[in-house]
Amino acid sequence: MRKSILCVALFLNGIVLFAQTKEEQTLKEIYKSSLTNAKCYPWLEHLSNKIGSRLSGTTGAEKAVLYTKAQLETLGLDKVYLQEVMVPKWVRGEKEIAYLQFGNQKISFPICALGGSVATPKKGVQATVIEVKSIEELTALGEEKVKGKIIFFNRPMNPEFIETFKAYGSCVDQRSSGAREAGKLGALAVIVRSMNLRLDDLPHTGGTNYGEISKEQRIPAAAISTNGAELLSKSLKEKPNAPFYLKQSCQTFDDVLSYNVVGEITGSEHPDRIMVVGGHLDSWDLGDGSHDDGAGCVQSMEVLNIFKNIGYKPKNTLRVVLFMNEENGVRGGKEYEDQSNKNKENHIFALESDSGGFSPRGFSIDADEANFNKISSWATLFEPYLVHKFVKGHSGVDIGPLKSNHIVKAGLQPDSQRYFDYHHAANDTFDAINKRELELGAATMASLMYLIDQNGIVK
Amino acid sequence: MRKSILCVALFLNGIVLFAQTKEEQTLKEIYKSSLTNAKCYPWLEHLSNKIGSRLSGTTGAEKAVLYTKAQLETLGLDKVYLQEVMVPKWVRGEKEIAYLQFGNQKISFPICALGGSVATPKKGVQATVIEVKSIEELTALGEEKVKGKIIFFNRPMNPEFIETFKAYGSCVDQRSSGAREAGKLGALAVIVRSMNLRLDDLPHTGGTNYGEISKEQRIPAAAISTNGAELLSKSLKEKPNAPFYLKQSCQTFDDVLSYNVVGEITGSEHPDRIMVVGGHLDSWDLGDGSHDDGAGCVQSMEVLNIFKNIGYKPKNTLRVVLFMNEENGVRGGKEYEDQSNKNKENHIFALESDSGGFSPRGFSIDADEANFNKISSWATLFEPYLVHKFVKGHSGVDIGPLKSNHIVKAGLQPDSQRYFDYHHAANDTFDAINKRELELGAATMASLMYLIDQNGIVK
Repeated sequence: MRKSILCVALFLNGIVLFAQTKEEQTLKEIYKSSLTNAKCYPWLEHLSNKIGSRLSGTTGAEKAVLYTKAQLETLGLDKVYLQEVMVPKWVRGEKEIAYLQFGNQKISFPICALGGSVATPKKGVQATVIEVKSIEELTALGEEKVKGKIIFFNRPMNPEFIETFKAYGSCVDQRSSGAREAGKLGALAVIVRSMNLRLDDLPHTGGTNYGEISKEQRIPAAAISTNGAELLSKSLKEKPNAPFYLKQSCQTFDDVLSYNVVGEITGSEHPDRIMVVGGHLDSWDLGDGSHDDGAGCVQSMEVLNIFKNIGYKPKNTLRVVLFMNEENGVRGGKEYEDQSNKNKENHIFALESDSGGFSPRGFSIDADEANFNKISSWATLFEPYLVHKFVKGHSGVDIGPLKSNHIVKAGLQPDSQRYFDYHHAANDTFDAINKRELELGAATMASLMYLIDQNGIVK
Repeated sequence: MRKSILCVALFLNGIVLFAQTKEEQTLKEIYKSSLTNAKCYPWLEHLSNKIGSRLSGTTGAEKAVLYTKAQLETLGLDKVYLQEVMVPKWVRGEKEIAYLQFGNQKISFPICALGGSVATPKKGVQATVIEVKSIEELTALGEEKVKGKIIFFNRPMNPEFIETFKAYGSCVDQRSSGAREAGKLGALAVIVRSMNLRLDDLPHTGGTNYGEISKEQRIPAAAISTNGAELLSKSLKEKPNAPFYLKQSCQTFDDVLSYNVVGEITGSEHPDRIMVVGGHLDSWDLGDGSHDDGAGCVQSMEVLNIFKNIGYKPKNTLRVVLFMNEENGVRGGKEYEDQSNKNKENHIFALESDSGGFSPRGFSIDADEANFNKISSWATLFEPYLVHKFVKGHSGVDIGPLKSNHIVKAGLQPDSQRYFDYHHAANDTFDAINKRELELGAATMASLMYLIDQNGIVK
């Protein structure tokens, strides 16, 4: 009796050991494939340098749809298709103009309209400026002091946060809600300090949200570079009543048809269980969206390419989704969820890469305790690849709407230090991408998809 | 009796808890100080942009000595001084020329002389090329096939290694020993593929070592860019006998006087126990040595600045040493050790930063088991700062010669993915530095120095 218990124990132990070794071995193959045989870097080179910026509703976005679909078709997947989605179309128009009339001098500032902003009147707006550090400070001023003024939101991102996304999260309300709140109080326009931890001359765009306020209350909103914000603040201390001039001619058109791009390998054992990996194909218009989020798209495509290269056939259906319109509407993410519900699809897992193509550090996991613990227990498998961070948190904006019963979601977390140097700015371009960092990210994603595919999720 | 044991246990537990909290608190202050109040970035800006490259024996190196000494003097340290050291003086001379005579065409290649190399004759050398992948392959060819030829070492860095320093370590023998071994066999010159994982047009210099071979056997050695190496290899497949022309005019002069720069805070409890933190002040001549190793120097200086800023007075003597001549002689490191022996100094710890100014990932620790375990046990303190890697290994070239009885040594390990994009090349310049990454590295170093200072080492 004791002998047979021992035998069973040794046998089970053997299975565990064998499984561990097999998983270790597969991760090794995945990283090797990505570092020696990946397509993600040349794919991104094409998206960035041949196509360029991909704001929803532009020809850039449409070219990107066709290009990525065509590339997925070369991978020998089971399905590649487009999913129709109506997207907003906002156009920046002519180069924005902003200056401070400083005595006889005009001090010009590098600015850009915020995405979704209305234009100024054709002749521009001009008014004195009130600098505030927060929406609370604005609200405390009240309508009397705000009316007819240009509001300058100038709270910098806090450098004390180790992770820059936390600094962003605690600062971005100025950009997303500043115009709405200032509009309610009768301001003429808002200027927002760019969401950038470093001091430079590039304005960083990004969405601003008027919410439900009336057309009359919707005022123009622009970002100013961090150096510009410092200079404006200093100038206003010298001449608080110097008038500031702003002109921008952005416009919102009717929604247009666009697409999510989808490719899949049908699961060999559970074709009805779907695992999604994705990023968003649209970008802002100033750079070419190499980090945000060309990187996430090509890394997601690479996951399928790696599986093909190492001959791994997933048990569950593995679907890559390149979502349209994350930046100014999340229409792609919402449409994907709608279609999934209509088709009664069963998603078990979704992974998004939308934090830049930098060295992978880990995952932010949106799951219950049991699934979080399960994924975290794989940390030792990732150690040789210096992937060490398994934390609970937000997964991704595009997979956010996915709300199937048992879905587990995660976001790739690359090193965040450089992300906001480029985010939504003209320097988010291909030269800011390091090939190995991009490939390591793709391998890290493929490894997690593989482990989920092998081990399933806790239901 | 049992009650008093319980009391003692609670009391000791309290001390441990208190100590932990105090250490956690101090690390928080250290990181905050570095991210909000550091001087390392402007210091490096000056070293890189105002002074530039700092090859041993050049005016750049001498300016860097004076500048860093002057900056250390502003920090209110207990001592700041220079330590004399004789260093080699090697000068590149005129821009190197290399081309392949390809039928009627001349195909030019981006090359640079390797540090320490001899010149070609004034009219250059011209010969057919033999491509090899290793010194073993060269040796197997033997004198008969090698004599009178130009040897082209073209084994790329292996991209499969996750850590790029491992790829470097397994490849750099071509650069350091290739000329010596080919010279022994009567080759005319060697061309070495640059130690660079990416394909680009920049040749990467670095030391080559003739060892004890005779003057007659010392042949010119140059690095070729990775794209150049690919093109040369391809061209030779088409025309194996096409002659290659090389001209370089580098020279070695007599040794000259230079300096290590030293600053210290005298220990409040154990002034005779010395902890060193340092980097090397010299650089190669092609870029401005921002990553290699301007970053390590200013981070080391920042450690003392942080302690001043947070009001921390070390118990042991804390000494910053900016070593001269790491790149082509390690004379500074050797001289520091000689002086230390002469003065019967007692070093307990040395930390070097010489792997670039990138996001810190951990430490490579050169210590016995007990001290390695002690340092590794602090890993949880570093977790909030995403510093996760505590491995046994090489510490640093400059602190390598330090061989006191009980010394523990460590090297900062930043993320290594981008390092060899810049290493010893013309693009190792200030624009490749991210301010936050540099500051996080300095804070990580200061944290380790603080923990060693508080807890001592195991003797």
